[in-house]
Formats: sequence, structure tokens, C-alpha cells
Amino acid sequence: MSMNVAVLGATGAVGTELLNLLAERNFPVGKLKLLASARSAGRRIQALGREIVVEEVSEAAFADVDIAFFAAGGEVSKQWAPVAVKQGTVVVDNSSAFRMDPQVPLVVPEVNAQDIKTQKGIIANPNCSTIIMAVALEPIHRAVGIERVVVSTYQAVSGVGARAITELEQQTRAVLNGEEPVMECFPGTSAKKHYLMAFNLIPQIDSFLEDGYTKEEVKMIDETRKIFHEPEMRITATTVRVPVYRCHSESINLELKGELSVAEAQRILAESPGIDVVDNPEKQEYPMPLAVTGKDDICVGRIRVDQSIPHGLNLWVVGDQIRKGAALNAVQIAEQLL
Amino acid sequence: MSMNVAVLGATGAVGTELLNLLAERNFPVGKLKLLASARSAGRRIQALGREIVVEEVSEAAFADVDIAFFAAGGEVSKQWAPVAVKQGTVVVDNSSAFRMDPQVPLVVPEVNAQDIKTQKGIIANPNCSTIIMAVALEPIHRAVGIERVVVSTYQAVSGVGARAITELEQQTRAVLNGEEPVMECFPGTSAKKHYLMAFNLIPQIDSFLEDGYTKEEVKMIDETRKIFHEPEMRITATTVRVPVYRCHSESINLELKGELSVAEAQRILAESPGIDVVDNPEKQEYPMPLAVTGKDDICVGRIRVDQSIPHGLNLWVVGDQIRKGAALNAVQIAEQLL
Repeated sequence: MSMNVAVLGATGAVGTELLNLLAERNFPVGKLKLLASARSAGRRIQALGREIVVEEVSEAAFADVDIAFFAAGGEVSKQWAPVAVKQGTVVVDNSSAFRMDPQVPLVVPEVNAQDIKTQKGIIANPNCSTIIMAVALEPIHRAVGIERVVVSTYQAVSGVGARAITELEQQTRAVLNGEEPVMECFPGTSAKKHYLMAFNLIPQIDSFLEDGYTKEEVKMIDETRKIFHEPEMRITATTVRVPVYRCHSESINLELKGELSVAEAQRILAESPGIDVVDNPEKQEYPMPLAVTGKDDICVGRIRVDQSIPHGLNLWVVGDQIRKGAALNAVQIAEQLL
Repeated sequence: MSMNVAVLGATGAVGTELLNLLAERNFPVGKLKLLASARSAGRRIQALGREIVVEEVSEAAFADVDIAFFAAGGEVSKQWAPVAVKQGTVVVDNSSAFRMDPQVPLVVPEVNAQDIKTQKGIIANPNCSTIIMAVALEPIHRAVGIERVVVSTYQAVSGVGARAITELEQQTRAVLNGEEPVMECFPGTSAKKHYLMAFNLIPQIDSFLEDGYTKEEVKMIDETRKIFHEPEMRITATTVRVPVYRCHSESINLELKGELSVAEAQRILAESPGIDVVDNPEKQEYPMPLAVTGKDDICVGRIRVDQSIPHGLNLWVVGDQIRKGAALNAVQIAEQLL
């Protein structure tokens, strides 16, 4: 059985990775359509060994498409996902547009693959930081239950988009050479003020809400609760951008509902799909962004008992946020649909 | 009244900053001696508008010294601090050698200046990450009491030493130019394996203990308890090196003993010595390492209620770890001695 596949936003960082993963994982692609706005239509792109001419997105374009991957931002998803669904297409949406919609399953296959069955045409791919945390928490939550999560993130610039990768490189060169750096991307392209990211940290990801939290922090809280079907799960988050190209890192402090030794935590994490335990302090082995880049697995290390509460556990988690944090998770959702 | 001052380790990052601060703050320096190992003796250094010839450290060298700042590492302190004390010198020691010695006060002047009175010749300067956190916690602890601290750090490379600053620059240039980077400094010069710091994160600061914590993490826990005279204060820490030249940042989650609103927290922090509240999300104002570099004040922002517990509060704290995190704190201790 093969599926006709469309990718909306094929030239972005996530779209490019999606096409690579469809090939790598031998996804049974029948027809492949690359869709974009009128501006990009007509471009030729090599994908899955074929040369594809980018088509302008339209209602008719979805007519014979079984699965469409949307990776072109929330506004595009809001406009075109309902159109695609009307044509019988199942949309796997990477944007935040439908994630908290009660009619739309929000899926990390390692955690809640069964939710895919409830889909009514749209399946949402969670936020990148959320996916990485959810994969690491699932075996622990299943084993003893998680009472509370305190997470601080160290997020890569590629989360801002392909332009941000170039800008970090240009800024870094400018700083090293004593030249004037360009500042257009950080904390976000649409921010009112822009800051230097090179050799700096920016404690703002996405825009601020009234309570002082950023949208990214609220996504980590709300989406994690939805994925785990734990609407009362106690979570707080602080999200920070760091001058790293790729891979999000997370310092996670857990209050567990029961006893879990470090050895037991290492064992259940190592046995879980999608997780690589990298935790050997004597050999200086722990997850680092440069070492995790390009990997499918979420890497977990620095696993330690937190003595400050009865059942405390600290973790250091690193995942490639473009792969498992976005494109791979979307392809895994599509594989479940097969 | 003027004091005869000696600096042991005057050519390092902290020593250099110490000399600048003695001048800046008009510390009443009588004689000034710069002491070092035989290897560095004879070098000429400009300090406080004088040209000083570096002397080899010896018992006799301390004979007429009132205050000696030690900034040459733990082993040097262990060897020479008792010798200096025997000569009647008061030692303000920047190393970890005596910090947990019950006979030695461990002082952050904003928190426990009164402990200086108990000194028997040695006063210890706390770890840099500890000082930065302690300054931010003090007003909150005084107002409502702190029940528990969960801290994740984002620490600058200058904490490793002056060579690490050069190595981050060299590594960054090498990565940008596709050349082979030198790797000798990270996670530490004496580590068995060395990693790339450029565009990377290293979740190891100092060496590992048997329970999986690093010495840096244990310092943050034990030293904070000693400074606050709260041996049971519940603290857990995860410390991480980031590719930033200067300023340590800390994501701090607090469980308080009583109610404290965000507005009240902002007010008491802003009124406290040594703290600058930078917390205006609508204007994208929050502490960032590049903006805090060279400042005396610890900057606190991203102050938010943590709804996951009854009295939860999140803070983002950034401090210049060479200034307030080391040299300035030492000079402030000496000022109290006057």
C-alpha cells in the first residue's frame, strides 16, 4: 500500500528534514506534492530521488492526497488544514494552530499513539521542547507517576528558523572580527527589539503573556498535560535561547509519586523506545547538543536523586529538535496511520 | 587609615579584576605586594598607578601585610594561608580550600557580613554561582522564608580561567572556518577528555562525586546553607557550561514558606543592595549575560508565580561571576574589615 503525500512548507528546516526522513524510513510514498505560496510555486526541488515542481497550495491540490504534512506556520495551517480535510486528506500539522483543540489529538507516538485513532482529519505535532521532554518523562511516569516537573531549557537557534542559523553564524563572525553584527532574528523575527545571540543567552522564546510566562513556557505546560491525559499535572517551565545551532537541552527536576532508584530509572529509560541513556559520569559521558545532532533518539543523562524532597530525580535531556522535535515525530505519526 | 595589601595570583582573571576594583573603589592601599610562584616572580605589573615587581611568595613576604587576597587556586591557598595568618595577615581566600571549614566564615556581605567578626585569620569567598544566587535569594528569604530551591545554571567559560576565554574564541573561529579546533580547556583543563565548547553545552562543571553530582553542584548546595545559617535548607542544582564569555545565569525555582506576590518580590529585590531588577516583559527587558558584563549588581528578572505549588516563584538571575562572583565580593569583605 502506498500513500499520496503532500508537504506544505517543504523548503524550511522542518520540511527539508521531513523529505529526508520519508526517504530514510522508506515511507511508502505514492504521488509526492510539494506545496507552497504563489511566491515559491514553480521552484524545482529534488526529493526522494524525484524532481518535483513546487505547486501553489489550493483546494484542488489536496484532491488525491492521503497525508499532508504542514510545516509552514500557524496562519497557513489555520487557513489550509480545514480545506485539506474537506478533500479527505489527513493533515499532520507541525504548527501550534490546533494543538490545544479538544477535537485534535496531540501526539508523541512513544506516549499516546492510541490517540491517533480519535483523529477527525487533523493530528497535531507538539512543540519541539514538549516532544523532547515527553519522550523522557513517559517511562518514568508509567513506572511510578510524576507529581511535579520543574524544567529549564537551553534551546538551539534553529528553532527560530533557517535564517536564524545564518544570523548566529554572521553575528559570531562579526563579534570575533570587531564588526557591526546584524540583529534581525533574536528573540524572534517579529520581535520589537532584537538582541545579539552570539556569546549571549536570551531568556525569551516566543512572546510574553500577561502572567510573565512566554508562550513557549505555556506550551510546555499545557501540551505535556494533554499528551499524558493528565490535566492536573503540576509543571513549571523557564525557556531560554542559547548560542547552539541545533538540539534543545532541558534540565528537568521531577517529584515522583513513588521510589525510583537511579539504576532503575536508567534501566527503564534505556529499555524505552526513542531513548538513548548517555549517563556515565566517570567516563565524562553525558548528552551534549553537538553529539546528539542528527540523532533520532532523545538522549538522557546526569540522572541523580534529588535529596531535597522525598522522591526527587534530576535529568539532563538533549534531543534534536528538528528531527524528533518536529519532522521525525510527524513521520512517526504518519507511520501509525498506515 | 591605610592597609598593606598583598594579592596572590594577581595575573589571573580574578586577580586582575581585584586590582581594578581596589583602585575603582578607592580602597586605602598602603603597601601593595603582588605575590606569585618563583616562575612568575620578577615580572612587572601596572596596578593602582604603580609599577610593581612580582615577588615570590614566602613566609617573610607576609610580614607587614594586613590583608592578603588569595586567587591562585585551592592548593596554593592550603599551603600559604596558614603561613600568612601566622604573620598576622588576614586572608580573603577565593579558593574552595577553607569554605566548608567550621572555623572559617564564608561571606557574602549582603547576606552575612556579621560573620566576618568571627574570623580567625581566614575569610572564605564563596563559589561564584553561589554568590550570585545568595544575593538574589537573601531579600526573599528574609521576607517570607525559602523552603526549597531548584537551580539550573548557564555558566560562562571564564569560570574555567583566562585560557578558556582564548580557547572558546579559537574554537569558534575554527568551527566557522572548517578547521580543526584545539580542545584542552573544557570541561576543565585537568579533565581526562576534552570537548568542543563552541556552539555546544557541557553539563559538567568541576569533577563528579559518587552520587552523580559535580563538585560545583554540591558547592552551590552546601555553601548556600552555610552562608544563610540554614543547614537544612532544601536545595538541588544542575550546573551547565555555555558558550558565553562572561556572566553566570541561573534559572531558579523557589518554594516559599509564605505568600509573596510578583510585585512584592520585585519591590523587595529592587530595594536590596547589590541587586538590579530588570523585569519588564512588555519591553523585552530581562537580564542577559552581554548586558550584565562588567556590572557590580546581580540582575534579576523573569519573576513569575509558579502555579505548580502553593508558594512558588521563578527567577532568572544573571551576575558577572568575575566581578560580584569573585573579585568584588572579596573586596567588599575587605571593606568590612576596615
